[in-house]
Amino acid sequence: MRVIRTAAAQLGPIQKAEDRDSVVARMIALMDEAKRQDADLIVYPELALTTFFPRWYHEDRAEADHWFEREMPGPATAPLFARARELGMAMSFGYAELTPEGRHFNTSILVDRDGTIVGRYRKVHLPGHDAFDPERTHQHLEKRYFEPGDLGFPVWRMLDGILGMCICNDRRWPETYRVMGLQGVEMVVLGFNTPSVNSQRNAEGIEERLFHHRLSVQAGAYQNATWVVAVAKAGDEDGHHLTGGTLIVDPNGKIVAELAGEADGVIVYPCDLDETRFGKETIFDFARHRRIEHYGRITAQTGVVLPD
Amino acid sequence: MRVIRTAAAQLGPIQKAEDRDSVVARMIALMDEAKRQDADLIVYPELALTTFFPRWYHEDRAEADHWFEREMPGPATAPLFARARELGMAMSFGYAELTPEGRHFNTSILVDRDGTIVGRYRKVHLPGHDAFDPERTHQHLEKRYFEPGDLGFPVWRMLDGILGMCICNDRRWPETYRVMGLQGVEMVVLGFNTPSVNSQRNAEGIEERLFHHRLSVQAGAYQNATWVVAVAKAGDEDGHHLTGGTLIVDPNGKIVAELAGEADGVIVYPCDLDETRFGKETIFDFARHRRIEHYGRITAQTGVVLPD
Repeated sequence: MRVIRTAAAQLGPIQKAEDRDSVVARMIALMDEAKRQDADLIVYPELALTTFFPRWYHEDRAEADHWFEREMPGPATAPLFARARELGMAMSFGYAELTPEGRHFNTSILVDRDGTIVGRYRKVHLPGHDAFDPERTHQHLEKRYFEPGDLGFPVWRMLDGILGMCICNDRRWPETYRVMGLQGVEMVVLGFNTPSVNSQRNAEGIEERLFHHRLSVQAGAYQNATWVVAVAKAGDEDGHHLTGGTLIVDPNGKIVAELAGEADGVIVYPCDLDETRFGKETIFDFARHRRIEHYGRITAQTGVVLPD
Repeated sequence: MRVIRTAAAQLGPIQKAEDRDSVVARMIALMDEAKRQDADLIVYPELALTTFFPRWYHEDRAEADHWFEREMPGPATAPLFARARELGMAMSFGYAELTPEGRHFNTSILVDRDGTIVGRYRKVHLPGHDAFDPERTHQHLEKRYFEPGDLGFPVWRMLDGILGMCICNDRRWPETYRVMGLQGVEMVVLGFNTPSVNSQRNAEGIEERLFHHRLSVQAGAYQNATWVVAVAKAGDEDGHHLTGGTLIVDPNGKIVAELAGEADGVIVYPCDLDETRFGKETIFDFARHRRIEHYGRITAQTGVVLPD
C-alpha cells in the first residue's frame, strides 16, 4: 500500500470584486479542514486565486494583466505556502502566470510538504476563442489571454508516487492522460472552471456538461490505470454559473468520492497508488499491447485529413 | 440530415459444435428483421461465424485453422451476401481470416448495398496471451492464433458518410478512435466477444466489464464526435459466459439504444451523420485545438518510460 490521503478542495464562486487575500483565507480554511481529516495532499481548482476572468473581454489585452501572478509565492499567496509548510501538507493549485519575459500561461503547480515547488504545468489545450464573439451567450477568451503551454505533460516523483497535472479542458483530450500514462503516472491532479452552459449551444446545460466531465476523467483514469483528482470552481460568479463536479476517480475508472453542491468544501479519500498496478500490468500493459506503427496520424497531423 | 438506419445485430452464444451454416441462417434471420425495420446497414459481432475459439488451447497451432475462412465470401457465407444484395442492405461482420500466404488475422469487413466488400480491417490490439497460462481461470489466446493487424485504422466513404471499423479490445484504446477521428470518421462499427469474468481477476464480474465497455465506447464517441455501433456476441458458450452490451452511442457520447438480454436480437436506430458536425466544429475542432508538439511519446514509445 502506498496511500496518499488526498483532499479535493472545491472553491465556490469568486466574484470579480473579491480580492486575493480573501480567496487565500478561504483556501487556508479548506486546508485546515483537510488536515483535520488527515490529508497528505490538497488539490484546488484552476485559476484558484481569482474569478474565471476569461469570460470578461478587454479590448486592451494588457488591462487583463492584473489577473496574473508575477511571482509564486507572491505577497498574496505567501500565507498559503506558510500554512502548508506548517501543516506538512503537499498541494496543487492553478493560477494565471505572467513570466518575467511577459508571457502569459494558465498554470498549475505541485508543491511538496516542505513548501518546495517541485512541478509546474502550463495548460496545453486552451478552449474558446481569441477575439470578441457576439454570437456567443458569454465569452470564453482563453485563447486571447493565454498562450498554449510550452512544457508538455511532465510527471514528478512526489509523496512516494508519480504525479502529473493537467487543467480543465485538457481532461477531455485522451492525449493528455496517455502522455502521462507513458511515464507511469499514478495520480493526475486537475482543476477546472466549467461554465454550466455551452456558449455555442444553449440547450446543453449543466447535466450534459457534468456527463462529459465525468466521462472524460473516468475514461482517462481507466485507460491509463491512474487515479484522477478533479476539482471544480463552482457556482454563480457575477451571474455566470460554473458546474461543480469535484470528484476522485480510481484506476479502474470508478468515481469513489464526489462532492455535492457549489460551495467551498473538501472531500478526502485514501488513494492507494498500488491499486494502479493491476491495470498497468494486464490489460493496459502498454509494452505488450500498444501498436505505435498504426498511431502515426496522432502526432503527424493536427487537424482532420479527409479520405479521397 | 444524412441518416443511416443502423441495425446492431447481437448474436447469442454459438456453441463449439455449431456449424457455420447454422450461424449464417441465424444472421440472415436477423437481417430480415432489420429489413422489416427499414435498416440500411446491419452490424454483427466479432468472429461472428464461430464460437469464440481463442478460449480453446491447441498445442498444434494448425489444428485451429478450421476456425478460419480462406475466402470471403466462401461457401458458408455466400447465402448471407446473396440476401444482403437482394435486400440492398449494407453490412459489417467479423471473422477469422487465413490469407493465401498463410497469415492469420482477426478481421472485419464493410460490405456495401451491392455486395461489394469496400473495406477490410484487421484487429490491431490483440488481448490475452500466446501460450497456455495455467494461472488463468480460462484461456484467452488471441496472441497465439492471430498476428496484429497490418492495415492500421482506415476509413471508407460509404452510405453518404465516412465509416471506420475496429474490433473488441480496440475499443478500450483511445488511439483507435483518434486515428479514425483524424480522418473525419462519422461512424465506427465494432463487434466484440467479451468474457464476463476477467481471467486474471475473478472478482471483476459482468457489471464491471460492462461498465468498462460503455465507458470506453462513450468516451471514444464523444472525444471524436462520431457515432459508435458496438455489437456483442453474448451468453453462455460451452460453459463460458460472454457479456451482452450491444449498444449505439451518439456523437455526444450518449447511449441512444441498448439491447437487453443475451439472445439473437436487433436494435435499429436512425443515426444522423450530420449530428457529428457540432462537436467536430467546436470543442473537438482538432485543427484549432490539438497540440501535437506535446504528444510525441504517443508514437515515439510503445511502453512506459519512468521518470528519473
